[in-house]
Amino acid sequence: MGDDRKLTTQEEDFSAWYNEIVYKAELAAHSQVRGCMVIRPYGFRIWELMQGALDSMFKETGHQNAYFPMFLPQSALDREAQHVEGFAPETAVVTRAGGAELEEPLVVRPTSEAVIWPIAADWIDSYRDLPVLLNQWTNVVRWEMRTRPFLRTTEFLWQEGHTAHVDEEDARAETLRMLGIYRTFMEDWMAMPVYTGRKTAAERFAGAVDTFACEALMKDNKALQAGTSHYLGENFARAFDVRFQTVEGEHAYVHNTSWGVSTRLIGGLIMTHGDDTGLILPPRLAPIQAIIVPIWKNDEQQAAVLAVAREVEADLLEAGIRVRVDDRQGMNPGAKYYDWERKGVPVRLEIGPRDVEAGSVMTVRRFTPEGQDRKRAVGRTELVAELPAQLERMQQELYVEALQRRAANTTTGIEDYEQFKDVVEQKGGFVFTGWCGDPVCEARVKEETKTTIRVIVGDDLASHVPPASCLCGDESVMEVVRARAY
Amino acid sequence: MGDDRKLTTQEEDFSAWYNEIVYKAELAAHSQVRGCMVIRPYGFRIWELMQGALDSMFKETGHQNAYFPMFLPQSALDREAQHVEGFAPETAVVTRAGGAELEEPLVVRPTSEAVIWPIAADWIDSYRDLPVLLNQWTNVVRWEMRTRPFLRTTEFLWQEGHTAHVDEEDARAETLRMLGIYRTFMEDWMAMPVYTGRKTAAERFAGAVDTFACEALMKDNKALQAGTSHYLGENFARAFDVRFQTVEGEHAYVHNTSWGVSTRLIGGLIMTHGDDTGLILPPRLAPIQAIIVPIWKNDEQQAAVLAVAREVEADLLEAGIRVRVDDRQGMNPGAKYYDWERKGVPVRLEIGPRDVEAGSVMTVRRFTPEGQDRKRAVGRTELVAELPAQLERMQQELYVEALQRRAANTTTGIEDYEQFKDVVEQKGGFVFTGWCGDPVCEARVKEETKTTIRVIVGDDLASHVPPASCLCGDESVMEVVRARAY
Repeated sequence: MGDDRKLTTQEEDFSAWYNEIVYKAELAAHSQVRGCMVIRPYGFRIWELMQGALDSMFKETGHQNAYFPMFLPQSALDREAQHVEGFAPETAVVTRAGGAELEEPLVVRPTSEAVIWPIAADWIDSYRDLPVLLNQWTNVVRWEMRTRPFLRTTEFLWQEGHTAHVDEEDARAETLRMLGIYRTFMEDWMAMPVYTGRKTAAERFAGAVDTFACEALMKDNKALQAGTSHYLGENFARAFDVRFQTVEGEHAYVHNTSWGVSTRLIGGLIMTHGDDTGLILPPRLAPIQAIIVPIWKNDEQQAAVLAVAREVEADLLEAGIRVRVDDRQGMNPGAKYYDWERKGVPVRLEIGPRDVEAGSVMTVRRFTPEGQDRKRAVGRTELVAELPAQLERMQQELYVEALQRRAANTTTGIEDYEQFKDVVEQKGGFVFTGWCGDPVCEARVKEETKTTIRVIVGDDLASHVPPASCLCGDESVMEVVRARAY
Repeated sequence: MGDDRKLTTQEEDFSAWYNEIVYKAELAAHSQVRGCMVIRPYGFRIWELMQGALDSMFKETGHQNAYFPMFLPQSALDREAQHVEGFAPETAVVTRAGGAELEEPLVVRPTSEAVIWPIAADWIDSYRDLPVLLNQWTNVVRWEMRTRPFLRTTEFLWQEGHTAHVDEEDARAETLRMLGIYRTFMEDWMAMPVYTGRKTAAERFAGAVDTFACEALMKDNKALQAGTSHYLGENFARAFDVRFQTVEGEHAYVHNTSWGVSTRLIGGLIMTHGDDTGLILPPRLAPIQAIIVPIWKNDEQQAAVLAVAREVEADLLEAGIRVRVDDRQGMNPGAKYYDWERKGVPVRLEIGPRDVEAGSVMTVRRFTPEGQDRKRAVGRTELVAELPAQLERMQQELYVEALQRRAANTTTGIEDYEQFKDVVEQKGGFVFTGWCGDPVCEARVKEETKTTIRVIVGDDLASHVPPASCLCGDESVMEVVRARAY
């Protein structure tokens, strides 16, 4: 049942802390294949809850799920020049199947633009068939050299949206709509605030005209790219000949978008909320929202306590709460507390003989804002009535906590490059600066400080005034957010 | 928007009829890779509804979803002798990744016993950790030479359950429990009756001690194996060293099961209910249960009719029905009727100017048992009140229809081999016979008649009396169901 010794602290070694949580909270396990991970039931349930929330939002905005093959001929990948340049080096390739060498090797999809559009092109004749709004939940493979569970694995699970539109305006609106859905999901469900904006050309998806991203701040003050949405222009439409007849009877290429989030989000969740005791899960994504730990000293007590625990469980299930009784034998209550705290369950409900007598339950919250009590005895009727609202409040409080941490670790008003370097070295976090727009300057800052431009901000607002100068001293033409990142 | 000419009839060419439905009802599309298919949104929605129903039943019986990698080292597959013999010939193999040759080739999972147990072995210390009840929804690859959409594709989607138990009794109970869940799903959701029973040694899953299957009868009188559940004994536990400490403190191997159903079920659905007009979907699995077709002759009528159509749609959505208004412009109502009949939508609701005036809707059922009216005018209030029950009735009627067809195409009381051959040639369907238990006799009948033993029946009942003699004339020791099969 795992090992009870304390976790490495975040302060000691954030990276070790992360790995310990992943394995000891039973989110994931090592596999037989380098860089591939196993998502264990507890971790997978978080992913299912994420899928449920996102999938509803996708369907509400008119998207339909489909499934396209995971294999594509090498020649299909080769048709969009930038795309193949970006992805070919990290593909896994099937060269043998059914006991024979294949005539043409098959690439395992790293992403599905080159799988979907050659096929979906047949479904589009006229403007009446547009937009085409597809999504799929799949596994993809990118042969990364350095992998970390959830954050970067050779095989990972994700959703990839792929859409086709009559023109740039419609496609760009879709790109931003989906970016907005991601942001809503990350803030309202994951309680993880994000900066959103456009990427620079150097950081763009291979084959995109424009890439937009959600960037979150982890507790070690590094940024995590948590989701991306791409406006692909006519690049893939031209590569795969995806054309339609316009209202005026002419032929035109469609404008495509694609957008995706992956199991990487689970990594983001861990590093946004976790502490030295373990995982902290926002109630909306917690597989178990309340764990009931019955406490007894002898058999008679055990029967009475377990009976009440079952009643409380039934009442809370009825109230729509994901609740479970931990009735494991041969394990003392303290060990159970430790186990569920490490797994980030939002609320623990302790029921002992005295609670049974008093008709009450001891509630212990996994997270409380500073100054609030963690423990509170509550009457059973009151508990059932108020726990749903209490969980919603915790959800909000976690978000506010993360927002305050980000505010405390975001620096603006940088005067020059030296000051920037000091902030990066001594504090980290997000740093707002101006940028001259020159990719050479961008590359130099990256090389010298290990920071990258996470997103360009405010360029959608005519009224936005960027800082006066870039880190290089030249005039700034836009404002950017920089950080060291995963 | 597809081609309006009639389908090939089932009588003319069942196989051509099947393919036309698959493509013209927009369930699937060809892909760029031989043997792989694209599941289009309409077909995928059926799969999602199937997944939803099955997943609930799995969770209610204590199973948890997880995700294991799709790659496994060739050496892992090699460890269970029968398993590798069965699967190795049809594997797809990744030999190159990240631009370099791999030291050990990676097999794309054909099934995951050899992926899961080497890893999950670590999670099992004592009897307290058992049973382990896992399931995953994944893609798998089996390099088949002859493929058909949904029925047999090189890559397919499925769920695979994998469990570990303290002993044979518990594992066998699980094997039959899951067989029962499949049967319930197939009969109650797919309206597809199945015979269930044990497979002969020749038809067993590679690596199983016993395989149990659900066998359905398609409209061309061929059988379809629709789901299987395997008792694996200690075969995989020994191969991957999955042991636990018993209550008595000794070490023992776990007993495993595995069980799966795939997108093949969609093929079963098509061939159980479809007719010469197209698909017929049981309401519980229909992406659209009711399609509203508004009818107008001029702009004024259009506005009034569409307004009412929207109201009816809103009322039916409220009543929990999956309903949609087909408001496509430039397409006459007849063409819409044809389109939705081909797609198997259970009920069509026609609303024209006269219906608006009369406050009524013309309901047209896709399927009616002989002697019942297909069309009926219903008042709007009445419609909303009775449609849910009407759909449930259709669900039952489809099941009864399929059950009657199977009864009419099941032959018992076979006297000898000549009579058996006549029945197979002239009628087809399921044929109950005795069997001597000799695999040589089994192989000979298969060779000579192209039929196989689908399942052994009644061998779980002490009171069951098998027919007196086998087809070979020898004494029969059990009763079997034979058929030509997909």
